[in-house]
Amino acid sequence: MGFIDKVTRASVHARSLVCVGLDTDAGKLPAGLAGSGGVTAFNRDIIRSTSDLVCAYKPNSAFYEALGSAGMEALEKTCRAIPSEIPVILDVKRGDIGSTAVKYAEAAYDRFGADAVTVNPYMGFDAVKPFLRPEKCVFILCLTSNPSSRDFQLLETGGVPLYERVARAAVEWSREGEIGLVAGATRPEALRRIREIVGAMPLLVPGVGAQGGDIDRVIRETGGAPGETIVNSSRDIIYASGGPDYAEAARIRLLHLRDEINKIM
Amino acid sequence: MGFIDKVTRASVHARSLVCVGLDTDAGKLPAGLAGSGGVTAFNRDIIRSTSDLVCAYKPNSAFYEALGSAGMEALEKTCRAIPSEIPVILDVKRGDIGSTAVKYAEAAYDRFGADAVTVNPYMGFDAVKPFLRPEKCVFILCLTSNPSSRDFQLLETGGVPLYERVARAAVEWSREGEIGLVAGATRPEALRRIREIVGAMPLLVPGVGAQGGDIDRVIRETGGAPGETIVNSSRDIIYASGGPDYAEAARIRLLHLRDEINKIM
Repeated sequence: MGFIDKVTRASVHARSLVCVGLDTDAGKLPAGLAGSGGVTAFNRDIIRSTSDLVCAYKPNSAFYEALGSAGMEALEKTCRAIPSEIPVILDVKRGDIGSTAVKYAEAAYDRFGADAVTVNPYMGFDAVKPFLRPEKCVFILCLTSNPSSRDFQLLETGGVPLYERVARAAVEWSREGEIGLVAGATRPEALRRIREIVGAMPLLVPGVGAQGGDIDRVIRETGGAPGETIVNSSRDIIYASGGPDYAEAARIRLLHLRDEINKIM
Repeated sequence: MGFIDKVTRASVHARSLVCVGLDTDAGKLPAGLAGSGGVTAFNRDIIRSTSDLVCAYKPNSAFYEALGSAGMEALEKTCRAIPSEIPVILDVKRGDIGSTAVKYAEAAYDRFGADAVTVNPYMGFDAVKPFLRPEKCVFILCLTSNPSSRDFQLLETGGVPLYERVARAAVEWSREGEIGLVAGATRPEALRRIREIVGAMPLLVPGVGAQGGDIDRVIRETGGAPGETIVNSSRDIIYASGGPDYAEAARIRLLHLRDEINKIM
């Protein structure tokens, strides 16, 4: 089954557009958990408590890499702990020349068993192509949720901002494999334009919650269809409580977000 | 000592503008070496055989990540095997929002002991800033050596190509820490323009050799000063021989490239 079918099924089944970001910081674990083993245990608890309410999980590689080789083991174990019917989007934001991108693709898909990855478009299509594989999906950074996304992504080029060029290129590239886009919640006025350009392509939308994006507008501008709109929330959910009730608190926060989104639709 | 001083000293001492890329592919090891242990042993032999002739080493993280947690150990051991007076540029091409970039910086600097990293500019300055630290240097991807660098990097924006915007931004950013640029050998006509914009900023130039860049033009367009021009060569050197004489063959190939460059100057 392709990634888009898989995420659509998971989204319909859980009646949820929410992807939980497993950005688990070893420095922010509840008392009693520590180090890479603590990260794995924390993630397993979060997954057990939330997996019937998500359309996907998105671990961000940085938090695991910071722990060195033990962190890579924690990431492997985390990916394995995710039920097989729920897709894993490995947030790596890689981008390198073709022969090197092949190695990054091996790491993401063959080592960690990811169903999808995030990729930076700056180096163009030959840095994207090695990530295209049957059943896998590549989410291209289009318009990111951070303030300095304006530095280059909003620059006018031939009458349209750079991020629109990226969205148009992504449509071309999607003839060769499954492609999605990362489009931040913090610039909702751009989400409608991106949706117009890319049709039904999956949009992974970070930046709600801690980063300030407006969920109501995100859903209206991106359409809110299962498999087409994937709303990521990381810190707000996994750190809903800093105490021993973290798994239950994460579930409650997630339920709230899921239901808030479902009401908009 | 800052990175720029360190790489300048190493460059003067070895009379070499060459950085050796440790892009060691576990699938291409000589007979008798295998897996992550083989990668470490191979790299140690290459380093031992070449360290008096280089200004820096540049391991590309992808080749280690493809081996999972054991690969991360091989990368740690490789970085530790590099003599302390020779800077390590860890080629990771990362780029993520600030709170996540902090974790990537921890991985590169605190885990692997890198002196410099490569960073993708697409997300703007707040994805770069967490990598700025005293004594460290951030090499921003400006114009890359792959064919599809043209997809976005050459787009006109306000009368100049995007890569020039990146070079200008890098000059601004260098007020807050040491910054270099990655500028590929495969578009030598752009190297002069980049040099004009950035002054004495270090340029890390991949793409000579296997990728077809013309070394003579690279040196002339970038100036060829120690600490300002860093010519990377990876596959050509480390795979100079596929046999048991790989370390000696790498040395001979490196000597040839170093002396060819020194003749141009």
